[in-house]
Amino acid sequence: MKRTTGALRVALLGHGTVGAETARALTGRAAELATRTGAPVELAGIAVRRPRELPGIDGSLVTTDAHGLVTRGDVDVVVELIGGIEPARSLVTAAMEAGASVVTANKALIAADGVELHRIARKQGVGLAYEAAVAGAVPVLRPLRQSLAGDRPLRVTGIVNGTTNFILDRMADSGGTFQGALHEAQRLGYAEADPTADVSGADAAAKMAILARIAFDTELPLEEVRFEGITHIGPSDVAHADANGCVIKLVGICDRTPDGVSARVHPMLVPRGHALAGVRGADNGILVEALAAGELMFHGAGAGGLATSSAVLGDLVELCRERVAGRGAAQAELSRVLPHGPRSQVAARHHISMFVTDEPGVLSRISAVFADRGVSLETVRQEGLGAEAELALVTHPATDAAITEVIAGLGELTCTREVIRSIRLLGTRKEPVG
Amino acid sequence: MKRTTGALRVALLGHGTVGAETARALTGRAAELATRTGAPVELAGIAVRRPRELPGIDGSLVTTDAHGLVTRGDVDVVVELIGGIEPARSLVTAAMEAGASVVTANKALIAADGVELHRIARKQGVGLAYEAAVAGAVPVLRPLRQSLAGDRPLRVTGIVNGTTNFILDRMADSGGTFQGALHEAQRLGYAEADPTADVSGADAAAKMAILARIAFDTELPLEEVRFEGITHIGPSDVAHADANGCVIKLVGICDRTPDGVSARVHPMLVPRGHALAGVRGADNGILVEALAAGELMFHGAGAGGLATSSAVLGDLVELCRERVAGRGAAQAELSRVLPHGPRSQVAARHHISMFVTDEPGVLSRISAVFADRGVSLETVRQEGLGAEAELALVTHPATDAAITEVIAGLGELTCTREVIRSIRLLGTRKEPVG
Repeated sequence: MKRTTGALRVALLGHGTVGAETARALTGRAAELATRTGAPVELAGIAVRRPRELPGIDGSLVTTDAHGLVTRGDVDVVVELIGGIEPARSLVTAAMEAGASVVTANKALIAADGVELHRIARKQGVGLAYEAAVAGAVPVLRPLRQSLAGDRPLRVTGIVNGTTNFILDRMADSGGTFQGALHEAQRLGYAEADPTADVSGADAAAKMAILARIAFDTELPLEEVRFEGITHIGPSDVAHADANGCVIKLVGICDRTPDGVSARVHPMLVPRGHALAGVRGADNGILVEALAAGELMFHGAGAGGLATSSAVLGDLVELCRERVAGRGAAQAELSRVLPHGPRSQVAARHHISMFVTDEPGVLSRISAVFADRGVSLETVRQEGLGAEAELALVTHPATDAAITEVIAGLGELTCTREVIRSIRLLGTRKEPVG
Repeated sequence: MKRTTGALRVALLGHGTVGAETARALTGRAAELATRTGAPVELAGIAVRRPRELPGIDGSLVTTDAHGLVTRGDVDVVVELIGGIEPARSLVTAAMEAGASVVTANKALIAADGVELHRIARKQGVGLAYEAAVAGAVPVLRPLRQSLAGDRPLRVTGIVNGTTNFILDRMADSGGTFQGALHEAQRLGYAEADPTADVSGADAAAKMAILARIAFDTELPLEEVRFEGITHIGPSDVAHADANGCVIKLVGICDRTPDGVSARVHPMLVPRGHALAGVRGADNGILVEALAAGELMFHGAGAGGLATSSAVLGDLVELCRERVAGRGAAQAELSRVLPHGPRSQVAARHHISMFVTDEPGVLSRISAVFADRGVSLETVRQEGLGAEAELALVTHPATDAAITEVIAGLGELTCTREVIRSIRLLGTRKEPVG
């Protein structure tokens, strides 16, 4: 059944790291989500294994009866975040048969039963989406399915398991063993207590099966994805790779061969200049080669509750939009949610360098020019001596107007011989961008 | 009006580099596109400025009357690839008013009039898509609008002009001047005869206006995007950046400030470890920072007729699907277009290394083992001498079965002391991937 009026009702199955972030967004950012879906979105319930209080969630919404929640008939979208094959498969099937669309982050389920679940979704006329099942926050299934819908993908090469990438990265940085790097990954939360699914390559194989199906419109069974893990990789392999200008990565590949579509996962030597060599730590990176588009690279966080919830919520909004469109309502479009700001307010770090006369008190007079215009300095470095003395300064974020005043002020000093250049500085991660 | 039966009819405006590739795909890959859209797709006509013969196109489909083509009432989707404001604006408007959906790669038009064109599209109930207007083949508008629909984009930082990126890259590699690098870009087809729009930053500003609107649901006017170009950048700036561990890039940024949304384009120092520093040549790269997803990087070809046609065709298929869905037909899903192949057929280059006894004839005996199993060698390198002699070989692409036989054969030789490792080698661009 499809409900045809009122709010969109969303049921969550599971309240682990991804579930908790998804619930937090549904309750805390409801107005924002409503502008995206075109109708209010409300939490119909959260199914958990054992009864417990959930922070910020009305207790009446929490249930241990997941099957009752998904089949009671007033739910538009079910978000399955339990993981594993059962009871996830039964619940997802029951939800679709009760008329709900389904979002899931469950790569094991989709890899094993995706073809059958798509068949049920088509028959029931409901949506089924699982962007979060592959590469966490990195959008890759939707670009493959939609953006490249008029192109012809030829090959998908990816680092799709953050745990093994973190371990191999640590081994390369430290020169240490697989076991040592695995323990560090476990300590930092990048690896499970039982890491078998990750380090054996099985997790990556599940993701490559899903990628191959979407990229190549095929029904490739999971069993046909061969995989090798990284447990046999030792420090000498890593050093040997390094000596050959390479890093070792656990790489998944799917492509068209003369006989059809093939997918596999195994450790590989990746030359340092290759796009996948730059995928560090627990990140995921996927390189898509297509007939017309050439090489496209997608890179970002492959796991983590908050990052993965981004992909879950993206699917949720899309399936909600489809429900709203099915009701005949208008879709949300450019809706002027945010005003646009005056340009003078934007602050950037600036790198300013100039030749100066090398005499006592120069730095004091120059830094006063900055301080008087409210611009503070992050670093100051003098290079060269005497007539060749050059001063290089990096400011904390400052507006263009302030920097223009600073440069005018510097020009009036007798100790500055030439303001040679001022250029904005792009921040590295977690720093101001400018 | 909306047609409700039969083939989807597509009209092309313009037959330049992108138009020619789009026409080629529509005529040459019609069956493939039909499986993606759910209905046959046929060319309704191509409007060109001056009458001429187009290779592979029935002469009766070619017209100089673009207005007549888009208003005659039997066209489902109009693909506008003329560029510039007029007559593109009038034609796109007339097409939508005649009931056609519109795909365009025209960043100038969308940056200047996108808000108004969306208003017309909503009023007419037709689609309007322009993925190709920003970053060529790289899917970024759809990921922002759909994949991140449940997230909150905070900042978009991009290299969105391939011409200036190529010029800056050449200056960094050669130590040469802006003019020299510009001439090289013109010679290679990366810059127009009149390069003003690119080198002034105006082209990048148009793209940042579009990105800002999509990322932040705002109606930011193009006039509010301030921009600076790269014509004043000289060899000493490039050398200075290099000495500071940076490269100079023309960077576009849009973000939320306390006062609203801001967008701007200017040259920046980019630290070498930053994701955008790895965007080389005429490529485009876009870094999206979002509340939940964290940092997402999209990277690929920013221009070129074939690459841009990928984005045009992706939009075209999406708008065609919407027309088909509007007719009540089923959407194309996993359709088993391709079979999946036996794993033994997949060939990879392998890196095999082993310790050998350092005596005459060793290499001949070892290479015979490869040749006898049909595996040819790409490179052979010996390192160390005497008891420490190590041989490192890279094969041409070979199947796993063949490599397994080779390793067994090597183990039987008395001159090989230990087959220490065999690992597949990931190809660099244009090489076999393995």
